Amino acid sequence: MDKITPIEFNDNKLILIDQRKLFENEEYFVCDSIESVYFAIKDMVVRGAPAIGVAAGYGMYIKALSLDTEDIYAFRSKMQEAADYLESSRPTAVNLTYATRRMMAVINNEWNNVAELISALNKEAVAIHNEDVQANKVIGENMLSLLKNAKSVLTVCNAGILATTAYGTATAAMYLAKEQGKQLSVFACETRPRLQGARLTSYELNKNGVDVTVITDGMVAHVMSKKMVDAVITGCDRVASNGDTANKIGTKNISIIAKRFKIPMYIACPTSTIDLGIKDGSEIIIEERDASEVTHIRGVQVIPSGVKVFNPSFDVTDHDDITAIVTEKGIAFPPYDVTLKVL
Amino acid sequence: MDKITPIEFNDNKLILIDQRKLFENEEYFVCDSIESVYFAIKDMVVRGAPAIGVAAGYGMYIKALSLDTEDIYAFRSKMQEAADYLESSRPTAVNLTYATRRMMAVINNEWNNVAELISALNKEAVAIHNEDVQANKVIGENMLSLLKNAKSVLTVCNAGILATTAYGTATAAMYLAKEQGKQLSVFACETRPRLQGARLTSYELNKNGVDVTVITDGMVAHVMSKKMVDAVITGCDRVASNGDTANKIGTKNISIIAKRFKIPMYIACPTSTIDLGIKDGSEIIIEERDASEVTHIRGVQVIPSGVKVFNPSFDVTDHDDITAIVTEKGIAFPPYDVTLKVL
Repeated sequence: MDKITPIEFNDNKLILIDQRKLFENEEYFVCDSIESVYFAIKDMVVRGAPAIGVAAGYGMYIKALSLDTEDIYAFRSKMQEAADYLESSRPTAVNLTYATRRMMAVINNEWNNVAELISALNKEAVAIHNEDVQANKVIGENMLSLLKNAKSVLTVCNAGILATTAYGTATAAMYLAKEQGKQLSVFACETRPRLQGARLTSYELNKNGVDVTVITDGMVAHVMSKKMVDAVITGCDRVASNGDTANKIGTKNISIIAKRFKIPMYIACPTSTIDLGIKDGSEIIIEERDASEVTHIRGVQVIPSGVKVFNPSFDVTDHDDITAIVTEKGIAFPPYDVTLKVL
Repeated sequence: MDKITPIEFNDNKLILIDQRKLFENEEYFVCDSIESVYFAIKDMVVRGAPAIGVAAGYGMYIKALSLDTEDIYAFRSKMQEAADYLESSRPTAVNLTYATRRMMAVINNEWNNVAELISALNKEAVAIHNEDVQANKVIGENMLSLLKNAKSVLTVCNAGILATTAYGTATAAMYLAKEQGKQLSVFACETRPRLQGARLTSYELNKNGVDVTVITDGMVAHVMSKKMVDAVITGCDRVASNGDTANKIGTKNISIIAKRFKIPMYIACPTSTIDLGIKDGSEIIIEERDASEVTHIRGVQVIPSGVKVFNPSFDVTDHDDITAIVTEKGIAFPPYDVTLKVL
């Protein structure tokens, strides 16, 4: 595969490909403070649930390095503030909290001194990063086992290399199929308002030789009714205990339409995305983002001034509309309230 | 209501508000030849099934004026060529053919001389125009009788004043509710690729004091699941004998999602949109438009060069997903293969 390195950690700095600038410019955004990591997550320099988690792990480590104290108690208190701060950057993706909690668990262990603790934090951030790389390949293999003779899949937003660290979650099966010489074409929904499908998914699939066609979000029922899609694969930002999943706005449309046409709906995600602490999708906070994301497209105004807009960034797909949830630890089928627990 | 005059015929010229330039600029496009009318329809200077029909009627009249012959047979032959030419500008809206056929029926009557015929053609083009104005108000009244206590409706594309001549088809009930002091709010889907909902529907509703909120096409299931929508009202470009309707791409998504949430799906159209000559939606030609409509938004590139796109301009809503078809001659309920015939 062509090398796309969305996240690197070098010289105590987090280096992110700036996804706001893609596809036109491959620019890198360097974070050397927790504030810059917060900004990068909030403003979607880095995006995608797994990538946000990896960035948050390093963000916590960068914060730890900046603390000038030998007092473990003071250190823990400052780090808890840092975790709360980072978690407030984007409320929907659970991977963010997953990462901050893992880092806090390390901090709350017994340590002889701060230096030892900081070294352990470095290891933990790197572990979160490496686990993501490993998880995606397995997710892809598990997904491929479900796809069988599928020739064409549809996806939304970007749950690709750019949303993770390698292979992506939703895209892993697409890249593996390519590596194995299988024919698998992809429809990428453009994904308004921020056009992650148009700008990012098409960019990375095309760059790596996967056959991809962009459609607008309104074309889903048309292409499905014409039997042009054999399966849907999307990522997700949070899975509730009952299998309800939050993902990019537009996913719920797709899930309902796919069910109508008896097309399987597969969710690809690492187990870090599963939140057994919540019962169902009604407990997931749906982030609302700035109106300007809808009123303007890449700087161009498309709605008259003064007209109201609504901008929920995610929606919740009902567990009844999901055929399987595919993780690095196995595939969960309904009933999810039973199967997710035993992954 | 604030005056918006999308179509006027003055001094033997067809004057169209240029819908490509809205909402930023209210510019007018003047057609003084059939070629300029053809261009205006093809390039969507004028758009919306009823408005296309009205423009085509005047286009035929402008052509008739330009013919320099006293020979009725030669005149008929030239006008048939003109009809074929205009009909090729956009294949999906049946109102276009409806208008050219009405003009040809006049031409194929018995006439003493060409001057008499030309005068009759003028009357026919004006009649097509006036009938549209009358039809829309009645469509609105019929629709309001169905809406009962609905507080919020969702629409797609623009089946408003701009798509017709006054009141619009889908918007007629919204304007009448406003005139009658009823509270009725509107969600306008932005309608990629050409953003008619974002640019045109929000523009004309807002200008006339109707409460309107723009959402992206992917937000439909989310707002419906949150019980924010009581009914869907859309226009359409062709109705088949069995009640299948062609409308702007994205309408099929909405119809399937509305059915899931038990929200009524109403189609508003003049009877000129009904094509009893075709059995079902599979016989409707779906226009595919240029890829640049998807790859670029108002001149800004949003998809990397070299990536494929698909751009069907319409989709077909299944008659089973339509609650009622509302016309100026009454409301048709299922089974449409029976009820449409007796309107």
